[in-house]
Amino acid sequence: MAGNIFGQMFRITTWGESHGRAVGVVVDGLPAGLPFSEADIQKELDRRRPGQSEVSTPRSEADRVEILSGIFEGMSTGTPISMLVWNSDARSSSYDAIKNTPRPGHADFTYMARYGIRDHRGGGRSSARETIGRVAGGALAKLLLSRYGIRIAGNVLELGGIRAKPLSFEEILENVEKTPVRCADLEAAEKMLEKVAALRQEGDSVGGIVELIVKGVPAGLGEPVFDRLDSDLAKALLSIPAVKGFEIGAGFEAARMRGSEMNDPFSMEAGKVTCSKNNAGGILGGISTGLDIVCRVAVKPTPSIGKVQQTVDLTTRENTEIAIKGRHDPTIPPRMVPVAESMVALVLADHMLRSGFINSRTLLE
Amino acid sequence: MAGNIFGQMFRITTWGESHGRAVGVVVDGLPAGLPFSEADIQKELDRRRPGQSEVSTPRSEADRVEILSGIFEGMSTGTPISMLVWNSDARSSSYDAIKNTPRPGHADFTYMARYGIRDHRGGGRSSARETIGRVAGGALAKLLLSRYGIRIAGNVLELGGIRAKPLSFEEILENVEKTPVRCADLEAAEKMLEKVAALRQEGDSVGGIVELIVKGVPAGLGEPVFDRLDSDLAKALLSIPAVKGFEIGAGFEAARMRGSEMNDPFSMEAGKVTCSKNNAGGILGGISTGLDIVCRVAVKPTPSIGKVQQTVDLTTRENTEIAIKGRHDPTIPPRMVPVAESMVALVLADHMLRSGFINSRTLLE
Amino acid sequence: MAGNIFGQMFRITTWGESHGRAVGVVVDGLPAGLPFSEADIQKELDRRRPGQSEVSTPRSEADRVEILSGIFEGMSTGTPISMLVWNSDARSSSYDAIKNTPRPGHADFTYMARYGIRDHRGGGRSSARETIGRVAGGALAKLLLSRYGIRIAGNVLELGGIRAKPLSFEEILENVEKTPVRCADLEAAEKMLEKVAALRQEGDSVGGIVELIVKGVPAGLGEPVFDRLDSDLAKALLSIPAVKGFEIGAGFEAARMRGSEMNDPFSMEAGKVTCSKNNAGGILGGISTGLDIVCRVAVKPTPSIGKVQQTVDLTTRENTEIAIKGRHDPTIPPRMVPVAESMVALVLADHMLRSGFINSRTLLE
Amino acid sequence: MAGNIFGQMFRITTWGESHGRAVGVVVDGLPAGLPFSEADIQKELDRRRPGQSEVSTPRSEADRVEILSGIFEGMSTGTPISMLVWNSDARSSSYDAIKNTPRPGHADFTYMARYGIRDHRGGGRSSARETIGRVAGGALAKLLLSRYGIRIAGNVLELGGIRAKPLSFEEILENVEKTPVRCADLEAAEKMLEKVAALRQEGDSVGGIVELIVKGVPAGLGEPVFDRLDSDLAKALLSIPAVKGFEIGAGFEAARMRGSEMNDPFSMEAGKVTCSKNNAGGILGGISTGLDIVCRVAVKPTPSIGKVQQTVDLTTRENTEIAIKGRHDPTIPPRMVPVAESMVALVLADHMLRSGFINSRTLLE
Repeated sequence: MAGNIFGQMFRITTWGESHGRAVGVVVDGLPAGLPFSEADIQKELDRRRPGQSEVSTPRSEADRVEILSGIFEGMSTGTPISMLVWNSDARSSSYDAIKNTPRPGHADFTYMARYGIRDHRGGGRSSARETIGRVAGGALAKLLLSRYGIRIAGNVLELGGIRAKPLSFEEILENVEKTPVRCADLEAAEKMLEKVAALRQEGDSVGGIVELIVKGVPAGLGEPVFDRLDSDLAKALLSIPAVKGFEIGAGFEAARMRGSEMNDPFSMEAGKVTCSKNNAGGILGGISTGLDIVCRVAVKPTPSIGKVQQTVDLTTRENTEIAIKGRHDPTIPPRMVPVAESMVALVLADHMLRSGFINSRTLLE
Repeated sequence: MAGNIFGQMFRITTWGESHGRAVGVVVDGLPAGLPFSEADIQKELDRRRPGQSEVSTPRSEADRVEILSGIFEGMSTGTPISMLVWNSDARSSSYDAIKNTPRPGHADFTYMARYGIRDHRGGGRSSARETIGRVAGGALAKLLLSRYGIRIAGNVLELGGIRAKPLSFEEILENVEKTPVRCADLEAAEKMLEKVAALRQEGDSVGGIVELIVKGVPAGLGEPVFDRLDSDLAKALLSIPAVKGFEIGAGFEAARMRGSEMNDPFSMEAGKVTCSKNNAGGILGGISTGLDIVCRVAVKPTPSIGKVQQTVDLTTRENTEIAIKGRHDPTIPPRMVPVAESMVALVLADHMLRSGFINSRTLLE
Repeated sequence: MAGNIFGQMFRITTWGESHGRAVGVVVDGLPAGLPFSEADIQKELDRRRPGQSEVSTPRSEADRVEILSGIFEGMSTGTPISMLVWNSDARSSSYDAIKNTPRPGHADFTYMARYGIRDHRGGGRSSARETIGRVAGGALAKLLLSRYGIRIAGNVLELGGIRAKPLSFEEILENVEKTPVRCADLEAAEKMLEKVAALRQEGDSVGGIVELIVKGVPAGLGEPVFDRLDSDLAKALLSIPAVKGFEIGAGFEAARMRGSEMNDPFSMEAGKVTCSKNNAGGILGGISTGLDIVCRVAVKPTPSIGKVQQTVDLTTRENTEIAIKGRHDPTIPPRMVPVAESMVALVLADHMLRSGFINSRTLLE
Repeated sequence: MAGNIFGQMFRITTWGESHGRAVGVVVDGLPAGLPFSEADIQKELDRRRPGQSEVSTPRSEADRVEILSGIFEGMSTGTPISMLVWNSDARSSSYDAIKNTPRPGHADFTYMARYGIRDHRGGGRSSARETIGRVAGGALAKLLLSRYGIRIAGNVLELGGIRAKPLSFEEILENVEKTPVRCADLEAAEKMLEKVAALRQEGDSVGGIVELIVKGVPAGLGEPVFDRLDSDLAKALLSIPAVKGFEIGAGFEAARMRGSEMNDPFSMEAGKVTCSKNNAGGILGGISTGLDIVCRVAVKPTPSIGKVQQTVDLTTRENTEIAIKGRHDPTIPPRMVPVAESMVALVLADHMLRSGFINSRTLLE
């Protein structure tokens, strides 16, 4: 109810502030009998870790995950899995300037309006560092889904106005990690890198679009009416900081289509019902069709920019100016890819359990 | 968990199929002491009722709401409010053709994949008739919010590629009900009407965009992290049949902006913190800023079209064709306006209660 | 959150006041493919109906259930089942006296303290009439459980200090409906009947104990830690009006036992792990052992008595007296039996779905 | 849904196994602005810590709590509070004997039936060590409640058949910590101590009854119908390992009373509605009356006893015997007192927030 718990049957509770002692997650609902190790989690955390390249913040955290419970002899036991990452490289002092002057585009003002108090250091709870817990939980969700043949591929489809060309699922998987912008179209990726470098020089930032494709989802997944698969994906993805839009399948283009264009005709293929195209994005009436789930999120430019901006001083109640120092990504989509994949994995694992496609007690027997 | 319940503290449970005996809703969580009557509900139901014009299905239901509980001497008592509308004009036989041949773009196939059985008449549970319950519940949410100065205006912003010009909140409220397309830009509305009429002739349909603006939301509403106000709005609006996308504030445009363009600078105005523009759409970090909440949904064209479409026969497992008869709206956005407003109202009422802006027990003293 | 919804995956929402237009329930989460009819529900409602004998209130409602949704061709479709019973025999005027003078032992005062307004007629929402929705929902839960070999037997174990002798599950099922006190020990039943008749003469009432036995529960049902099977049974049964205590297995007697007496030793029987006795009442660590679940609830005497009682006038804020007229059961346990069975069935159906023993989508295939 | 989360608005998620790396809790829903420190938590943890006396297990853990998030400058910020205690003194080898031979009265067999795998060391997740998280979370709930004048007193009312005499709330608070049995009647406490000492000699154990009294609860707290205050207390207390029964007010005695005895007459006192006695235990219709809440739980004897017991070998599927070594409390009620108080505090804090008696956002202003 207080907003830090996500999911119904596969549930994560994230906790931690940017400059607190640690950040972490408790995963409740992973069935017993899944073999896993810290390496499975670390692999995903390493993908979201800052300090990896010129497109991300130079803050360098080791971000080593520690698993504190729920595992026995290398296997999940059905009990909660608590994981944490210690905060080590927190330079709080560089945030003193923002204590009373809310940064435009950030949650500083709204947290203050809500709570009357906030941990301003590094954005506190509203920092992207909170997503460590999501990625750690998402890593377990991915691992669980992979046993049922479900795979997720995120990709930066657009950055600073540069659009990637459409690629197949396998092409994306093969190329996405080859460049720091996480765009599988390597030509577009190069242009994106140039764009980002130029903006960084100017002390500005840029937005983009992340696309998520899911392969292997069985037909019949998703609850009707309110807990639709697409509703839950929308909620999950909008909960990632900086996301301002979500679309599935044809998305906003559907608003300009005719019914005869939009509808995906059914046909039999190898004894199975399928569709020759996928404007629906793999979901009809909130329930999966068995085709790929395809959705996209719009990501705003990083709000932390070096340029001088106007703001207010909450103590003097007067207008003032701010120029943000500290360490920040000049663009968010590349690092958002693993976070967005994690949120998709969490939604799918949750629904696979709710719908009885995965036994909620145990995978043994 | 089975998906027919929405909200945490202001909760609705909708029930009913298109051609069952009735459709309805139970509202749980309305505080005691709110004066209301059937007329308050009926007014909103009348807005979503079919058979009102050439842009909507000629099915003519009276759609008279009956309140069965939770009211005493004209006032809410804090106990659940059960409301129903009887189904009277159900011509089930016209749906016999679709029993085994799923309509493209509809939930026929996915319900069958999920449950192995479905009430095919009129789309059964996946019919837009289910939204009656939402609108009835939403009417109470609106009434509750209005006591706290919160008002919601829906508007068809785009239809069949025709875009309305930007209008003020008051202009929208004044003009939106003047034409059957529910577009407050009356010039655009005329063109939209023509477009719809032409498509109806061709047996085709068209999509559009609905915009929602909320005035009067206090700063500090919304939970951080997962139950953000925008996340919950996204989920709520994506749960409406035919919605394929959601955006807030600058939305997908934000993906093409620079940080220096996107950020809304803070300033003091009459002793209050505000912003000179509103790319954020009234929400930062999932919490309201106090500015207008502005969001939009992409609506696909009505999947029921007169044109012949390809599909499969689920009994013979062979390809076949279908041409849909029955009665259908040639375009969805106009009738979606009151439904979308209802979902927004439900989310806001829920958060106003969760965040303690409204007392959950009683409005009396 | 407002308290009228019970269960996680098998969920009921009850609504309605004693003297409102109707009372009812929405069942969300019944998997598709369960054949049922109004007769299945009616059978259980008839067991709880008033006006059946000298131990219950002479109020005579037909209590005919109407199913409004969720059923198609005699089978559940996986969508919500809405059921209602119209209130027909409501003599509201006999309650005028209690409008401002809360009845001792009733919820009149606490509802007023909470809400500042209440429907005083017949106890409003706090009336035992609310349990109609529970019994209707419970009837579906029972039907579902019976397909998995799970059966529930309620029995009045004690009434007015008269204790029944221990009987087998089959003896209880055979005899429990033979007398209006619903005590399967027919000798004890006779004494109970006399006791109740005597008290009715005096304008007084009497309490008792209801025992519930469940056969056929698989081992491994129940979540650990907070959502234990016994925790959920306790919550479910305490939610029935007039229940003041709950115990499982040895219950309060366990407080006086030694470990060596209390512990149930394990042994192999026909290749299966079992116990030679069942002080645990079928649950260890919150999870079922596979033995019978045995629990009991303490029921207070009917608070509505003819004798003069002291109370206050909420308008004048002065002490006053009250003698309750109206129609009331002189004792509650006999009519509570079907209600308590329903609550037990609801908890078990919910856990069978949560734990994956029953597929939550469909029973077909 | 997987059972490790408790509460709606004040929510705790506990995690950890007896011999895992640590045990802990995440508290979600504490409003911003509550001053607290590790000392506030430690004080309560010290009360439940083992190794304190001859009535508890000699396992000696320092049980030092570490607060990892949600606190800034000594105050809650409204974000989740993560707390952990490292497991240091875990002698796992002494549990090898029980790996395949479930201990009678323990959850060994049922966890195995449910999950097919379990961490057998020290009982794993079903160990009483899990209650550390509850007590840490409960400490914050208590602190929050104390600001609103709500105080909780637990007391061992009965142990091994020895019953304490009734004492006032203040007498209990004054004396309860004076003896290791936590019985405020010091004469009875002495006899209890002797009883426990004797049983320990015999390698046996003994049960008892814990009473909880809550002072200062406002009238009007609790949701009607399913989420009654007493229902939620029952669930909360039954979720503590070894609890086999719950009663409120007159409890099981109510089953033997007449209505005229049981009912608590209302009267005016100093301008306030009150009752001259409290058989209701402070709750009518699930809602608080404003009088003390009084409830009791039946606690079974410690299932771990030195005596030889019969059990089965789960690998050979044959009967066998077991004599439990390891370190165990000879009786549970004394150490349960702080745990039971914590569960009561969690329920009350949750309802105070749900019902709007405490603002869920912030205590500042």
